[in-house]
Amino acid sequence: MDLAAAIQWTIPAFGIIAVLFALYLARDVLRRDQGPQAMQDVGATIFEGAVAFIRRQYTTIAGLALVAAVIIAAVIAVVEGQNVADTSVYGLELGIRTGIAFLVGAACSMAAGIIGMYISVKSNVRTAAAAQHSLVGAVQTAMRGGAVSGFLVVALSLLGVWSMFALYGGLDHPEEAPFLIVGYGFGASFVALFAQLGGGIYTKAADVGSDLVGKVEAGIPEDDPRNAAVIADLVGDNVGDCAGRGADLFESTAAENIGAMILGVAVYLIAQAAGWPEPQNWIFFPLVVRAFGLVATIVAIFFVRGREDEDPMNMLNRGYWVTTILSAIALAFVTNVMMETTGAVGANGIPAWIWFFLCGVVGLATSVAFVYITQYYTAGSFRPVKEIAEASKTGPATNIIAGTAVGFETTAVTAVCIGAALLLSHYFGTQAGVIDANGNNVGGIFGTAVATMGMLMTCAFILAMDTFGPITDNAGGIAEFSKAEGGAREITDRLDAVGNTTKALTKGYAIASASLAAFLLFNAYIDKVNLILARQIAAGSTTAHLMTSVNVDAVSVFVAGLIGAMLAYFFSSLAIRAVGRAAGSIIFEVRRQFREMPGIMDYTQRPDYARVVDITTRSALHEMILPGAVAVATPIVVGLLLGYEAAAGLLIVGTIGGVLLATVLNNGGGAWDNAKKYIEAGHLVDDAGAVIGKRTPAHAAAVVGDTVGDPFKDTAGPSLHVLVKLLATLTLVLAPLFLR
Amino acid sequence: MDLAAAIQWTIPAFGIIAVLFALYLARDVLRRDQGPQAMQDVGATIFEGAVAFIRRQYTTIAGLALVAAVIIAAVIAVVEGQNVADTSVYGLELGIRTGIAFLVGAACSMAAGIIGMYISVKSNVRTAAAAQHSLVGAVQTAMRGGAVSGFLVVALSLLGVWSMFALYGGLDHPEEAPFLIVGYGFGASFVALFAQLGGGIYTKAADVGSDLVGKVEAGIPEDDPRNAAVIADLVGDNVGDCAGRGADLFESTAAENIGAMILGVAVYLIAQAAGWPEPQNWIFFPLVVRAFGLVATIVAIFFVRGREDEDPMNMLNRGYWVTTILSAIALAFVTNVMMETTGAVGANGIPAWIWFFLCGVVGLATSVAFVYITQYYTAGSFRPVKEIAEASKTGPATNIIAGTAVGFETTAVTAVCIGAALLLSHYFGTQAGVIDANGNNVGGIFGTAVATMGMLMTCAFILAMDTFGPITDNAGGIAEFSKAEGGAREITDRLDAVGNTTKALTKGYAIASASLAAFLLFNAYIDKVNLILARQIAAGSTTAHLMTSVNVDAVSVFVAGLIGAMLAYFFSSLAIRAVGRAAGSIIFEVRRQFREMPGIMDYTQRPDYARVVDITTRSALHEMILPGAVAVATPIVVGLLLGYEAAAGLLIVGTIGGVLLATVLNNGGGAWDNAKKYIEAGHLVDDAGAVIGKRTPAHAAAVVGDTVGDPFKDTAGPSLHVLVKLLATLTLVLAPLFLR
Repeated sequence: MDLAAAIQWTIPAFGIIAVLFALYLARDVLRRDQGPQAMQDVGATIFEGAVAFIRRQYTTIAGLALVAAVIIAAVIAVVEGQNVADTSVYGLELGIRTGIAFLVGAACSMAAGIIGMYISVKSNVRTAAAAQHSLVGAVQTAMRGGAVSGFLVVALSLLGVWSMFALYGGLDHPEEAPFLIVGYGFGASFVALFAQLGGGIYTKAADVGSDLVGKVEAGIPEDDPRNAAVIADLVGDNVGDCAGRGADLFESTAAENIGAMILGVAVYLIAQAAGWPEPQNWIFFPLVVRAFGLVATIVAIFFVRGREDEDPMNMLNRGYWVTTILSAIALAFVTNVMMETTGAVGANGIPAWIWFFLCGVVGLATSVAFVYITQYYTAGSFRPVKEIAEASKTGPATNIIAGTAVGFETTAVTAVCIGAALLLSHYFGTQAGVIDANGNNVGGIFGTAVATMGMLMTCAFILAMDTFGPITDNAGGIAEFSKAEGGAREITDRLDAVGNTTKALTKGYAIASASLAAFLLFNAYIDKVNLILARQIAAGSTTAHLMTSVNVDAVSVFVAGLIGAMLAYFFSSLAIRAVGRAAGSIIFEVRRQFREMPGIMDYTQRPDYARVVDITTRSALHEMILPGAVAVATPIVVGLLLGYEAAAGLLIVGTIGGVLLATVLNNGGGAWDNAKKYIEAGHLVDDAGAVIGKRTPAHAAAVVGDTVGDPFKDTAGPSLHVLVKLLATLTLVLAPLFLR
Repeated sequence: MDLAAAIQWTIPAFGIIAVLFALYLARDVLRRDQGPQAMQDVGATIFEGAVAFIRRQYTTIAGLALVAAVIIAAVIAVVEGQNVADTSVYGLELGIRTGIAFLVGAACSMAAGIIGMYISVKSNVRTAAAAQHSLVGAVQTAMRGGAVSGFLVVALSLLGVWSMFALYGGLDHPEEAPFLIVGYGFGASFVALFAQLGGGIYTKAADVGSDLVGKVEAGIPEDDPRNAAVIADLVGDNVGDCAGRGADLFESTAAENIGAMILGVAVYLIAQAAGWPEPQNWIFFPLVVRAFGLVATIVAIFFVRGREDEDPMNMLNRGYWVTTILSAIALAFVTNVMMETTGAVGANGIPAWIWFFLCGVVGLATSVAFVYITQYYTAGSFRPVKEIAEASKTGPATNIIAGTAVGFETTAVTAVCIGAALLLSHYFGTQAGVIDANGNNVGGIFGTAVATMGMLMTCAFILAMDTFGPITDNAGGIAEFSKAEGGAREITDRLDAVGNTTKALTKGYAIASASLAAFLLFNAYIDKVNLILARQIAAGSTTAHLMTSVNVDAVSVFVAGLIGAMLAYFFSSLAIRAVGRAAGSIIFEVRRQFREMPGIMDYTQRPDYARVVDITTRSALHEMILPGAVAVATPIVVGLLLGYEAAAGLLIVGTIGGVLLATVLNNGGGAWDNAKKYIEAGHLVDDAGAVIGKRTPAHAAAVVGDTVGDPFKDTAGPSLHVLVKLLATLTLVLAPLFLR
């Protein structure tokens, strides 16, 4: 067995290595010092809250997923008869298989979320303890805790897709199996939608609710342990950024991987016809690339180190660059081994694998670009944040206007970068010389898929940096709570600032990868629709025609596109409003505790933190149902009423609208947040050069902007990422419904 | 000559009647009492400012238009040679004709704006004077003053399109002329873009600047005559709402009319082949419908009357309903006369004219729907505004969050209504049995054009109601300034509240008509592209293919769509930011006057109002250049780089994005405005039932929302209307540039 034939076995091998490495990291983190008893107490309280959250949140989601799985299985069993099936599997069998794939996808996503959250919540107290002695130690503890999440999310998604693929006959019939496992991606999307929505509502409701009832009503300081909602607030950081973003990227990797495999089928057929060696490698390619990305990230984790006096961001950046460079090298190796086109060469006599390697490099470069773009728009050292801080001098209204202008502005560079990445990777792909029997150059679309997979190679590292955020945020809270020595707090503050940046970066990365992937997902949908249509035509249908375009100039497609773009706004409106209502239920409960437990105020009674956590969870889960239902129902209704081409229109225009609105909300929110921090850090000065700092009207104005930005950047924006991908997986799974 | 052959002559006849009626109304208004000397003085000062504005604004725009006309003529002369021409006119001759059409369109739009502004500014003092004695008198003065604008805008656009059509041989070759006059629509768009942008920046810069420098810095009351920027503020109301919206709707009627005529060409060819009588009527139809709409509006103006104790909104609504009902009757008549299809009938044996009549009714109904939707979302008596007012209790941040949620929410009903109108009118159109030689059912697209023309029948009345807004707003300011007796102020306050509603309605109407029309404009673009392609194919080109779809799943089209949707955000960002910068230049000048003219403060010196007006104008005109240039350049660059199909993608997805963002900005801004008014009117109560009114923290929070909403609803939102239409007319004129 030569290298080209053997390389597919790196998928389970590297996947398992990554899981083992995550366990090693978890063990390493759990063994570390937990600090004095006071720290351990606070840590335990947060842990208690997080467990309360995990239990209820995932119970609800599991219930919803079960119901959804049964419905999907039933619908497919009834609708997708032999005449509209896209593979040789159809009817009841296909229904059951899809339902099972859906459940496995949902379960893997939940498992990654639960374990990741568990370690993340255990890491915070150890990070606080490490911060008593060493900056580097604290960075490593937080980063390794975060990396547990990162590796588990990516490795479980990899192993899950591969197992389903193998289970559904992919090793024997690689050209059929990708279509059978789309349910896996839909399951992941479904869990991600509710995990992100619920988590996003939770974290901001706890934030706003605890502030209003504690600081404003009861007149006690922020983060005061007498406020029963404070633990919910700390739990919320983990819920939104760790579990939510983890589910978001789990879905990205899974759904985009499956989409890329579907596009790989077209090249597989060409390779088979041309007699190229190991044609199935074109289908395995996306999985193998991700497996190598995991290995690159494992190596990079050991590069997260530095001097005690170094900017912690540098240590993380070092690791990120190592991941990127190793990924590029791995990409060259993998494309060279897997994309053998005996004799056939692409444009200018350059072999296909080099063209596709360039596509992958475009993906890696897009990742780097978004890391820096996000920094420019949300970090305090550049024009946009300064502009908002300056506008705060004339009050909250001008602060909001400036922040809105910045948020709107960020769409320009985002759209241009994504557009350039798509055009470039598509162009490189068309040069590879991969032409099908009908003369279509399928290399272009496959090129965008390769770029997406290239971008996703660094996903585990990005996610580790993201989870670094809530861990250090919590570590700061724990240090504050437990009155740790001054040095510890100073270190956690520095880490927290870095964590804010990494959280923002991850959102930029998530939205960019979703946009880059959007294109391959549309085409996977069209491939699936055409498989069904081709079968109908072969069966003698005279009305069916292959879908060769999504004509947005047709009335039904245009209207569907309008509805899709509207959905992004309407969904965000519901999500933003949900935060307000959930905050109300927290306020109600904390008031009750103050009233019925008079000992709280003089510290003789311990507030019932878990109850507030539970109520916040219930409320957040209750509030997530409506936006979630709207997100799921809208494409189904439009597809049923207006047909499959209109569904594609909704998907495509909805993706454009959702990506841009998420960019506005994420970056606007991040810029407002950092404008406040910019003022708090004493960088804003008046005409005479005097510092305008905390407790000034300008600072109060900046706090208004920060509060407005909270539900934008932590609830609506990230939920839109998931919405966009849900549209893709949902239409992919339910395509047969729209074809009648 | 029978009725069907003669009906086209109603176009010039009714157009001239409408102009004469406008002159009659102007004469009627100008003859009315101007009140005491104090009133006349203030009125004269506003007039002085308005003239200063008009002079500079229109000089700049005329200069830009001249340059643009020369460039367009040159580009077309060079690019559109015989091989890519869409008609028998090409090369230099076509370039010159297009340039002339562009200039005539620009000139008509400017003439309508100038005359309308002139009368509007003359009407305000007379409205204030009338308010001393009679509510009905004041309503009639303001409404007739507004109607001068309304009639001139619509009639000049009608006569302009018709004259160009006749001049360019439309009476002999009706199937060629519509393509030759697209420059007229582009000229109107071009002027509208700058008139609306400049006006929008002007009005809000003056508003914000005068408040900051007067109330905040100098500590003098709002609207105090010592503030040199106050007159600029009053002038601004006219500039934005009267001149800006007038240019906006002038463009709508002109561009959509020409687009509808282009679509009519397809039906003309069918009618000619089938031997239906008077086939040219299908091309004249859009013009005739609008001519009848003008007559309906003339009659309706006389129904604007009522009792002294009646709600003024009722009087206006009465007129609106009369316009709508008369328009429906006229529509039945016109379709019956003009759409004779001897023998041929549509579905179910129902003749074509009835099906198209139904399309027109859909348009009229859409107009009514948007009038009520806008009221629901922006008037104080309904849930959305109340929700924002309630949220103000917890401060400015929750006010902004609630307002954003409301703004986002409004996209849902907007998209659904527009979608329903398009699907319905398209469906009715397909039932009419208008099938071309290739078997295409062109009735569907023509049906959406008929619906658009139906909607535009009430345009003059809507525009009169819109201009009613700034007139009554100014009348209130004049009454305040001149210390008129209490009764007058009470009446102008009531009228001002109505004016706020009518201004909001007009924006809803403008955006709905732009969306409904978008579809016909896309198709006009495709028709034009295909005419050129067909000529290339006939000339033996082997590479040219007719454009049968706008495939948004093609990479270049998708990227262009992404850029189009982004453009709406980026353009809005620039417009919002321009307001801030222009306000800065006002503050600078008023400070200088306070410093260098010490007599201002003790009333011994008169501030130099005209200078502030001029500086505001200069600054607004300077600031409008960048967003205007971006709006014009983006589609050209994308079309040149990515081709004609991508240009269509940018146009279509950009329209969707622009329409939705404009809806968010207009309705969010309107709701914030009225939430403030709701609190000021004493409708907000606390838990104990006590009123939370002016000078409370909740009111302060609502003021923040109102200020944020100002540039949203008066600068960015309305400018987006124009952007959307500019994209259509620009691509229509420059299509040959993208075809190489």
